[in-house]
Amino acid sequence: MHILMTGAAGMIGRKLTARLVKDGHLNGQPIEKLTLTDVVAPAVPQGFSGKIDLTVSDLPAPGEAGKAIAEKPDAIFYLAGVVSGEAETDFDKGYRVNLEGTQQLLAAIRKTGGGYKPKFIFTSSMAVFGAPFPPAVHDEFHLTPLTSYGTQKAICELLLADHTRRGFLEGVGIRLPSIVVRPGKPNKAASGFFSSIIREPLAGQETVLPVDDSILHTHASPRSAIGFLIHAAGLTRAQLGDRININMPGVCCTVAEQIAALRRVAGDKAAARIHREPDELVMRIVAGWPSRFDARRAGALGFKAEASFDDIIRAHIEDELGGKIAA
Amino acid sequence: MHILMTGAAGMIGRKLTARLVKDGHLNGQPIEKLTLTDVVAPAVPQGFSGKIDLTVSDLPAPGEAGKAIAEKPDAIFYLAGVVSGEAETDFDKGYRVNLEGTQQLLAAIRKTGGGYKPKFIFTSSMAVFGAPFPPAVHDEFHLTPLTSYGTQKAICELLLADHTRRGFLEGVGIRLPSIVVRPGKPNKAASGFFSSIIREPLAGQETVLPVDDSILHTHASPRSAIGFLIHAAGLTRAQLGDRININMPGVCCTVAEQIAALRRVAGDKAAARIHREPDELVMRIVAGWPSRFDARRAGALGFKAEASFDDIIRAHIEDELGGKIAA
Repeated sequence: MHILMTGAAGMIGRKLTARLVKDGHLNGQPIEKLTLTDVVAPAVPQGFSGKIDLTVSDLPAPGEAGKAIAEKPDAIFYLAGVVSGEAETDFDKGYRVNLEGTQQLLAAIRKTGGGYKPKFIFTSSMAVFGAPFPPAVHDEFHLTPLTSYGTQKAICELLLADHTRRGFLEGVGIRLPSIVVRPGKPNKAASGFFSSIIREPLAGQETVLPVDDSILHTHASPRSAIGFLIHAAGLTRAQLGDRININMPGVCCTVAEQIAALRRVAGDKAAARIHREPDELVMRIVAGWPSRFDARRAGALGFKAEASFDDIIRAHIEDELGGKIAA
Repeated sequence: MHILMTGAAGMIGRKLTARLVKDGHLNGQPIEKLTLTDVVAPAVPQGFSGKIDLTVSDLPAPGEAGKAIAEKPDAIFYLAGVVSGEAETDFDKGYRVNLEGTQQLLAAIRKTGGGYKPKFIFTSSMAVFGAPFPPAVHDEFHLTPLTSYGTQKAICELLLADHTRRGFLEGVGIRLPSIVVRPGKPNKAASGFFSSIIREPLAGQETVLPVDDSILHTHASPRSAIGFLIHAAGLTRAQLGDRININMPGVCCTVAEQIAALRRVAGDKAAARIHREPDELVMRIVAGWPSRFDARRAGALGFKAEASFDDIIRAHIEDELGGKIAA
């Protein structure tokens, strides 16, 4: 099996690569080749015995999408994307990367022909939904995004579903909740603080909370996100039916509950490193996001997330900090 | 006021033009100029005292969208489109006309700048919804179209909402039910038979019914559709809120009830001109469409349709046949 991964240099890309290398197979088939692509060079994965192709590519640029799938990869993990805050401040860039990039890749696959029909696992987002919301956003709630990022993801979902229906590929879109705790440095995502308020205190650093403590939100760990992607790749067309875009499960809690979990896991000193500095742009974007989900379909299809926010913090400490917390 | 109309040579375009000319104003402002554009030359409207610009244009072609809005029309009625059957059989053409054409026009408006912010009335379709459906498709039901046409319309709705939210224009999308009775010759729309089974018998001609009598569907007359467009143009951003794409009302009935209404209005002889010839492609497309709607929002916003299918037939006899039915 040959796997293509776009956005491979990103956090999810690196973790998914490591998991695929560790597993050595996908859907019971040995992985013979990994093609990793991104706008910056992806790192060479360690310990992989198969072929590796690392490429730097700007997917929406002419000819790039065609090159990316020239060797007809069997499965495509589509992780490329401009994050929500940046898509909101740079309208052109957001549409170019998040919409045109996907369109180009779908078109290149469609034009390949000769029975080529790859598995296409697309990372979507809960930002496809927009306020006002019912108490829990269920699987049949309409798509009325209130950000350009959410709009771009919703459009890609529609394109993926139509290309799947027409038989050009086998698509599945997974709507990720906020991925927390993200390792490394903050990115430009408006949701970045959900990670920072845990990650920085655990590392002994001060951090800023730009929204109110009462904000209710749904989270899943990077470890769960990788699990969702792998699980999605194994779902059949018969299991998915026509509605291939699915809400993923997660832990729903308030910022106050996140901080309480941090206090339980890492003590008062860690919690005291969070400083409140309201940010209007972030508050406006977050207010347009849903808080709670009824991810019934995902549950029935076998997707699994953490059971508590404490577990999400522990996953971060195990996976990123070697089990150690700053004093 | 300067009004631009795309798809102006089509049935709705011609009727909307006639209505605008008759009214002489839109939203209380006198109409000084009408720019009518289509891929074939629109007809010269009769009795209009203002300026008229008739243009033949292929909107997705480079530069054409920019030309269409170069004079900064105050209101744009966007009627252009490839119909459902054709969008299903010609994938490329459907996406080019129904998606790229809209994208080009939205981009041209956005790039105009200088405070230009036209009213943009977009004709969408109930085909944005896909089976399985609840007993009535309500305003918050999710968008999972089962045709390429429905996919293209749903994507345009999302783009229109995002462009409106970002302040580039004032958009409103109206999801038309099937427009029945369409005058003239059958077009390539899969829904064409809903009109043919009334229009041809009233004109003394034989016609074919390609689906089962039990098919339940929602209809509005061309007269109502024009009313929806004019009413939509008058709605304010405050009235619409963020959810600018709205289900339109209509008359919900089975094909058998349509035929019964025909019998009441035009007699047994007319009804006997309908011949049953099942067509698999048409049946498959129609099976993916919703049948009944709860158009509560449209009602609250003041949109009005006919009260019965008899009224829809009578509107056709009045507007198209000069009150006369074939013996």
